[in-house]
Amino acid sequence: MDKKALAQLLQQVASQNLSVEAALAKLDTPQTADLGFAKVDLARQQRTGYPETIFGAGKTARQIIAIIQTMQQESPYVLCTRVDAEKAAAVQAEVPAAQYDVTARCLVVGQRATPKTDQTIAIVTAGTSDLPVAEEAALTAEVFGNHVTRVFDVGVAGIQRLFDQLDVIRAAQVVIVVAGMEGALASVVGGLVDKPVIALPTSVGYGSSFQGLSALLTMLNSCAEGVSVVNIDNGFGAGYCASVINQLGVS
Amino acid sequence: MDKKALAQLLQQVASQNLSVEAALAKLDTPQTADLGFAKVDLARQQRTGYPETIFGAGKTARQIIAIIQTMQQESPYVLCTRVDAEKAAAVQAEVPAAQYDVTARCLVVGQRATPKTDQTIAIVTAGTSDLPVAEEAALTAEVFGNHVTRVFDVGVAGIQRLFDQLDVIRAAQVVIVVAGMEGALASVVGGLVDKPVIALPTSVGYGSSFQGLSALLTMLNSCAEGVSVVNIDNGFGAGYCASVINQLGVS
Amino acid sequence: MDKKALAQLLQQVASQNLSVEAALAKLDTPQTADLGFAKVDLARQQRTGYPETIFGAGKTARQIIAIIQTMQQESPYVLCTRVDAEKAAAVQAEVPAAQYDVTARCLVVGQRATPKTDQTIAIVTAGTSDLPVAEEAALTAEVFGNHVTRVFDVGVAGIQRLFDQLDVIRAAQVVIVVAGMEGALASVVGGLVDKPVIALPTSVGYGSSFQGLSALLTMLNSCAEGVSVVNIDNGFGAGYCASVINQLGVS
Amino acid sequence: MDKKALAQLLQQVASQNLSVEAALAKLDTPQTADLGFAKVDLARQQRTGYPETIFGAGKTARQIIAIIQTMQQESPYVLCTRVDAEKAAAVQAEVPAAQYDVTARCLVVGQRATPKTDQTIAIVTAGTSDLPVAEEAALTAEVFGNHVTRVFDVGVAGIQRLFDQLDVIRAAQVVIVVAGMEGALASVVGGLVDKPVIALPTSVGYGSSFQGLSALLTMLNSCAEGVSVVNIDNGFGAGYCASVINQLGVS
Amino acid sequence: MDKKALAQLLQQVASQNLSVEAALAKLDTPQTADLGFAKVDLARQQRTGYPETIFGAGKTARQIIAIIQTMQQESPYVLCTRVDAEKAAAVQAEVPAAQYDVTARCLVVGQRATPKTDQTIAIVTAGTSDLPVAEEAALTAEVFGNHVTRVFDVGVAGIQRLFDQLDVIRAAQVVIVVAGMEGALASVVGGLVDKPVIALPTSVGYGSSFQGLSALLTMLNSCAEGVSVVNIDNGFGAGYCASVINQLGVS
Amino acid sequence: MDKKALAQLLQQVASQNLSVEAALAKLDTPQTADLGFAKVDLARQQRTGYPETIFGAGKTARQIIAIIQTMQQESPYVLCTRVDAEKAAAVQAEVPAAQYDVTARCLVVGQRATPKTDQTIAIVTAGTSDLPVAEEAALTAEVFGNHVTRVFDVGVAGIQRLFDQLDVIRAAQVVIVVAGMEGALASVVGGLVDKPVIALPTSVGYGSSFQGLSALLTMLNSCAEGVSVVNIDNGFGAGYCASVINQLGVS
Amino acid sequence: MDKKALAQLLQQVASQNLSVEAALAKLDTPQTADLGFAKVDLARQQRTGYPETIFGAGKTARQIIAIIQTMQQESPYVLCTRVDAEKAAAVQAEVPAAQYDVTARCLVVGQRATPKTDQTIAIVTAGTSDLPVAEEAALTAEVFGNHVTRVFDVGVAGIQRLFDQLDVIRAAQVVIVVAGMEGALASVVGGLVDKPVIALPTSVGYGSSFQGLSALLTMLNSCAEGVSVVNIDNGFGAGYCASVINQLGVS
Amino acid sequence: MDKKALAQLLQQVASQNLSVEAALAKLDTPQTADLGFAKVDLARQQRTGYPETIFGAGKTARQIIAIIQTMQQESPYVLCTRVDAEKAAAVQAEVPAAQYDVTARCLVVGQRATPKTDQTIAIVTAGTSDLPVAEEAALTAEVFGNHVTRVFDVGVAGIQRLFDQLDVIRAAQVVIVVAGMEGALASVVGGLVDKPVIALPTSVGYGSSFQGLSALLTMLNSCAEGVSVVNIDNGFGAGYCASVINQLGVS
Repeated sequence: MDKKALAQLLQQVASQNLSVEAALAKLDTPQTADLGFAKVDLARQQRTGYPETIFGAGKTARQIIAIIQTMQQESPYVLCTRVDAEKAAAVQAEVPAAQYDVTARCLVVGQRATPKTDQTIAIVTAGTSDLPVAEEAALTAEVFGNHVTRVFDVGVAGIQRLFDQLDVIRAAQVVIVVAGMEGALASVVGGLVDKPVIALPTSVGYGSSFQGLSALLTMLNSCAEGVSVVNIDNGFGAGYCASVINQLGVS
Repeated sequence: MDKKALAQLLQQVASQNLSVEAALAKLDTPQTADLGFAKVDLARQQRTGYPETIFGAGKTARQIIAIIQTMQQESPYVLCTRVDAEKAAAVQAEVPAAQYDVTARCLVVGQRATPKTDQTIAIVTAGTSDLPVAEEAALTAEVFGNHVTRVFDVGVAGIQRLFDQLDVIRAAQVVIVVAGMEGALASVVGGLVDKPVIALPTSVGYGSSFQGLSALLTMLNSCAEGVSVVNIDNGFGAGYCASVINQLGVS
Repeated sequence: MDKKALAQLLQQVASQNLSVEAALAKLDTPQTADLGFAKVDLARQQRTGYPETIFGAGKTARQIIAIIQTMQQESPYVLCTRVDAEKAAAVQAEVPAAQYDVTARCLVVGQRATPKTDQTIAIVTAGTSDLPVAEEAALTAEVFGNHVTRVFDVGVAGIQRLFDQLDVIRAAQVVIVVAGMEGALASVVGGLVDKPVIALPTSVGYGSSFQGLSALLTMLNSCAEGVSVVNIDNGFGAGYCASVINQLGVS
Repeated sequence: MDKKALAQLLQQVASQNLSVEAALAKLDTPQTADLGFAKVDLARQQRTGYPETIFGAGKTARQIIAIIQTMQQESPYVLCTRVDAEKAAAVQAEVPAAQYDVTARCLVVGQRATPKTDQTIAIVTAGTSDLPVAEEAALTAEVFGNHVTRVFDVGVAGIQRLFDQLDVIRAAQVVIVVAGMEGALASVVGGLVDKPVIALPTSVGYGSSFQGLSALLTMLNSCAEGVSVVNIDNGFGAGYCASVINQLGVS
Repeated sequence: MDKKALAQLLQQVASQNLSVEAALAKLDTPQTADLGFAKVDLARQQRTGYPETIFGAGKTARQIIAIIQTMQQESPYVLCTRVDAEKAAAVQAEVPAAQYDVTARCLVVGQRATPKTDQTIAIVTAGTSDLPVAEEAALTAEVFGNHVTRVFDVGVAGIQRLFDQLDVIRAAQVVIVVAGMEGALASVVGGLVDKPVIALPTSVGYGSSFQGLSALLTMLNSCAEGVSVVNIDNGFGAGYCASVINQLGVS
Repeated sequence: MDKKALAQLLQQVASQNLSVEAALAKLDTPQTADLGFAKVDLARQQRTGYPETIFGAGKTARQIIAIIQTMQQESPYVLCTRVDAEKAAAVQAEVPAAQYDVTARCLVVGQRATPKTDQTIAIVTAGTSDLPVAEEAALTAEVFGNHVTRVFDVGVAGIQRLFDQLDVIRAAQVVIVVAGMEGALASVVGGLVDKPVIALPTSVGYGSSFQGLSALLTMLNSCAEGVSVVNIDNGFGAGYCASVINQLGVS
Repeated sequence: MDKKALAQLLQQVASQNLSVEAALAKLDTPQTADLGFAKVDLARQQRTGYPETIFGAGKTARQIIAIIQTMQQESPYVLCTRVDAEKAAAVQAEVPAAQYDVTARCLVVGQRATPKTDQTIAIVTAGTSDLPVAEEAALTAEVFGNHVTRVFDVGVAGIQRLFDQLDVIRAAQVVIVVAGMEGALASVVGGLVDKPVIALPTSVGYGSSFQGLSALLTMLNSCAEGVSVVNIDNGFGAGYCASVINQLGVS
Repeated sequence: MDKKALAQLLQQVASQNLSVEAALAKLDTPQTADLGFAKVDLARQQRTGYPETIFGAGKTARQIIAIIQTMQQESPYVLCTRVDAEKAAAVQAEVPAAQYDVTARCLVVGQRATPKTDQTIAIVTAGTSDLPVAEEAALTAEVFGNHVTRVFDVGVAGIQRLFDQLDVIRAAQVVIVVAGMEGALASVVGGLVDKPVIALPTSVGYGSSFQGLSALLTMLNSCAEGVSVVNIDNGFGAGYCASVINQLGVS
């Protein structure tokens, strides 16, 4: 409750238009639904513009189902990330409206939002193995109401592949660069576009890639400006950040 | 044997009330039961106030059974942590009194101690995925004779969930904060309470969480005072520490 | 040279309006001034909307002077970061127009750009020791034509300081959160605003902060969405990213 | 402001005993003094029982002086840690009441609190080189109103030194174990006492001690229960934690 | 397209021997085949002298089949590394020409190139467990047209085994040294030959070998000159590097 | 061939008692049996006093069988470490004389050597979970001709268990201390005995034990003198080192 | 002494053309000059084609002088790397022929070798701050008889700078890529040339560059083939490797 | 006090030959001299055969002087390691008998022990820069009564230097191998001798040597048996271990 609302409430109390009890209740309204194992944040959409997304990795199918059912009462759509096929099937058995994206390993319940802006988000990957992470980002961006352009497998080992797609990439409002191994693509793209670049390292690689650490460090140390970074394999985070940026100023 | 007991013993020897042999035997009484693969610490309860707990992870069901059976002769209750369901079943087949807590992955033999104090320990988690570790801490605290208040899923991403529960948390004598990922909850709680806070990092997360390292470092570097830290996923350790603190001054 | 320009050029050659030699020259125009030790990127402003900034750390005063003098011919203003006081004085002796910001450790040559947008960038720090990095970010954002709001020393150990400033922070279009030690502030702010949050870890701390590693990991693992991260102490990078985002859609 | 106070305030408004403006002011009273570079937390003592301590490491003498002068208006004593001799002298020139402890590298302003409890905190070090960190912990504990027992240089390489002091250590209510190098002392003490043990790793050592990392890991992995850990060289943190525990139940 | 070719093309346009449209098409000819999930680099052989090799690890059998079928149109042979037996069988079912090397875990399609030079590449391993990586290197070198000499299991623990084979090793033009554990063999060989040595660390080992990190660091810090290093277990990379060096000056 | 033997050989050649061909052959006698995938070091026993041991981890059953059969021709006994039960059975099917120790995960072929000295090696473990590594060390020491005393489960959490066994430990000529978790036992034992102590860290533990890194660092930084360290879980190495030391001066 | 030389020597002994004593002396000729603190490898040039280079970093001026004076008797030129200005002056005072390269921090004694081949080595840097390391590589390559082409400051943030120089780079026989920060340049160059690429990471950067670790990992994980890597800041090693490759087949 | 002594003491008490008070005093005799900042271990020589050595690094000259003066009363000689020249001079001003070894950075007070055995300890270094650490080891071994053979600068880059000295090395009873950079020398020596090898990594190197980590890991992962390892730059530890081993069986 912000200061203005508080002043109004106090005014109502002072003018006897609101009883002390009612004012207390208003100040005390639960904003979360308490499921015991989880407190579902019902006010999140109101507070940040987006509903809370379910991080499926550490939860049982039963827990996910209960959270979805609670959230559905408040949100037009629910996104649940990091769900493997088996868990997805268990959820779908109880929540038939849930649709499973096998590459992105996500469940989506409800209709996707109509894009809120014509501006697009470009998702650029270095290789084919980066697809699952890239698709998690793409799905997230789409679910939150954005157009997405996919530009896959344009890593720097064959840099002309990137230059062939430069017009497409430059047409976007925000660019997500997805790369594992040495992650050099983020720096190269960062030097070629004048839009925000979100670097998304993946755990693709072996040996001294150290499960994505190499790509992460590369991206953090990018000599190209305008590049910020999210966690390794965090497709959701990249898609979310891009969406927030892409919808700035959109009412 | 402390100095006073030693003086008495020597006095007895000097006054011929105790033979040299008997004195030697007293000085030499085994305090451990030697099972070959293990030396069960029978004097631990006397020395530290608590019986030795069995760390089940590296032991066979057979070894656990033998240790429980030895300890039962000395202790009213036995706690065995880090036991998976299969091993638990094997133990229960031989030790019917053993009860298995599937979330906490612990076996408990014997009746739980009556709480030794009215003061409570609050166990606060950032998310749902932290439950197994939190329950290990809770069970430990309960087994050692404490009241436990559970406050789950109040991570900082939706910080009002935490504020809603602040009264409950502040009512406790000791607070355990359980969090994975970035572990920021420990610092926030540490700044809001005036009681000892034990930070318990979990391995929940992915990518650069590095199996709990991120949360561990966060907690060690907490800018809030009064926070001390235990090992990643060490629910038992946190519960034990909290119990020792909670029972200070309790006779 | 993009495809459309290339087609026009070829058309001119075909229609004899351009000689082969002239076309080759156009295709071959140097976009960089070669100083031997450096190739100054003269087309950067055209390509990315911003002039190249000089990273002063590994360069001699002599090299910085030469680069500034080259860049001044093309750019209305030049920013040189990571310059200590002694080196700054040496540069100022030759480039009297250079102004030195002692907290941000930056040299600025030329008039600051008039803000290109009314939207502001909020720079929020956890502590007083984060100021040099925060001021580097602030100066960068200002030099590139943005209004900046400074909200300093509102770390989570005394979280009401943050809540007192929440209205100010929420009024911004982009938020930079600057924190060392455990860096928890980024997650807390990320959960409270619906704007892009750029997390800027600093090397403030000691022991297991490992020169900023702890804060960096915290921010990468933030449980709050909408947070992306730049390198430790990279005030310039954070200011630059924020500027690009803040000026999206500004012609 | 807690719920009960809020209800009273609303009641006063409803009964016209308090104007809306006055109520708003009460709800809006600044709890921090804003010095621009710092927001001094004036309500900290009220909220957590202790005043905010100044972390001197990243601050100029000028900043420290200003903060001390602000805090003095609210607190009977002020502690400033991590101050080198030169900075201390500069502060003392302006704040004559400030006393400097050269071993602990701390400034104390105002009279030390009278111990609030007869229970003591034992501070046990492995070696002589651990003294500066141990004294920071001791001074902190004393400033916050505790009796401290110092037991120095009883590392496990000559373990009889520890056993000679066991009675002294066991007489304390809380034990801080300070050790660098391999840090084994914490585990040994942890197995010998039935009180809370706070392990405080130091950066004493060389080579693969990695500036205290070795001792830190040792302490986190302690096989002895009841041990929790603070950051490397964090004498203040250990002293603070011990004080909170030692004063539990003290009104 | 290099500058000379560009001048010729422009000349043709100027002399009306080439239409603007045809020139544009030439400048715009796709050099990659776009399969959606992958952009196959068809010009790689022309540009670097070698066709693109398929990194099989992160790809499905279906994706590999499609890429092979595309590449076969352009390349006399195709190499696909990091293919396990099951995936290999699935590929062979559709691409009968594919031959599987079970030790090297590689698929080869098409006839091996006739060696382009009489100079040989020696592949020297420290132990038997290094064979899979060594064979990946050997196969790569052979596929790209080189003679390979295998010298296996001559680690420094029994250094006379190495000296027995020194003549064989010295007869090669390039030497690949393959070693896990402590990787000392690279330094020893580096001090005994006057040819380029490519050090190839393997993940063979346990404990503090940290999956090849120990061998990698050893090789990077080699006190013998003339040693350069590739990623852990990167047999393909070592074989490729050796091939490029071995064929320098070969037309 | 040492210098004296070389002089004799040359003398024989000079005196026509040895043909040039025979001399060359003598200088060229293969000391290894080349199996292609392995070069079995037949002279190792002669050179270092011990036969080469087979490190079973990276080898197939087929390779192990071939190496054993080659070595049996030269050595009275063969030790093969790091063999799981399945691989062991496969070897035993072909080499019936091979005996499998399931705890130590080792195969032994041939009769154990009669102890070469009456001095014993004590193997001391912190916990029950350290047994497999301890038994690998014990078996190695026994196979190479030493008496072994086992002192298991005497970790520092219950330090009186260690003191109860101190006479037994002090009676040994060499002490191996086996510990995971924080590994403090090595320092404590090192301070209590005046014999060489070989510290053997194990990967027992979880969280920040980082698979034995914590114990390894503890042991390397031991404040007790006379402690040297082998690799994590390297039971064979510790047993071998202890054997070499124990048999010094034994002809 | 190789086998052929040994046969000849034995033949001479057998035919009485060489006394046993003389043969022994020949077999025993010291190949190193023993200075006590150093054993100068006089046979290195004969064995590997290059004289031993002096690594100046850990040596006193006095030691360097003695080694140079010893080596001068055998080598036409001596290279001493990692010498700071003060130490260089001390050496020059005694060895007037020593020339100091202040950027490369190297001393050279004797005339540079005439290039042994017309093929060049290209040294390509990402930034101006990489110059000291690049010049160490360049000087090394020149001292060992190679032509060097310098292409400085063409990092990927302004990638057209690289493309402008591609012809120059492609004209070389071997390419050294020198880069700090994220080190992406090595991958990009590796994808554009068909010659051996030696990646040379530098410690240029800050924060999570971790003194060159980021660039090192990037280069080890390069998705471009034909790239091998040397140690961080190891200009000498890169120059040496490049020289060995560049002179392959040169008699 | 061991069991036998205890039995005698009790017997004396029982037979009235010893009063209870005297017995208590005997059981309670301080074995340490308490200097406040240090507890000097006076019984160490009796317990472990060697006096406590002073680790000078973290101590003031004043503290060192006091400890030396205390120890001199009990020990024929005192060794103080890690003392820089300035601190050494301050100590010598008060303790004229103290002799300073500038290379080893050690102070020795009192006459060196006459060698207790004819067996020697060989100290073998890879390079000249390893001398300070090697000399600390040598001095330690000599002070504790051993003959030392120095074999310096025989690293594997010029391996014939090592073979030239093999007879000397093999003549020793214990071998210490001192090496920085990649540390390969330990493995090579370990494969060539049949005596205990103590590997002593040094921090000599740069870049990815990570202050000795590379050499440390190399030595821990040595494929040669019989190698155990001490901390980076721990010359004292290596010398001490070698001494203990060398004097086994010496009465």
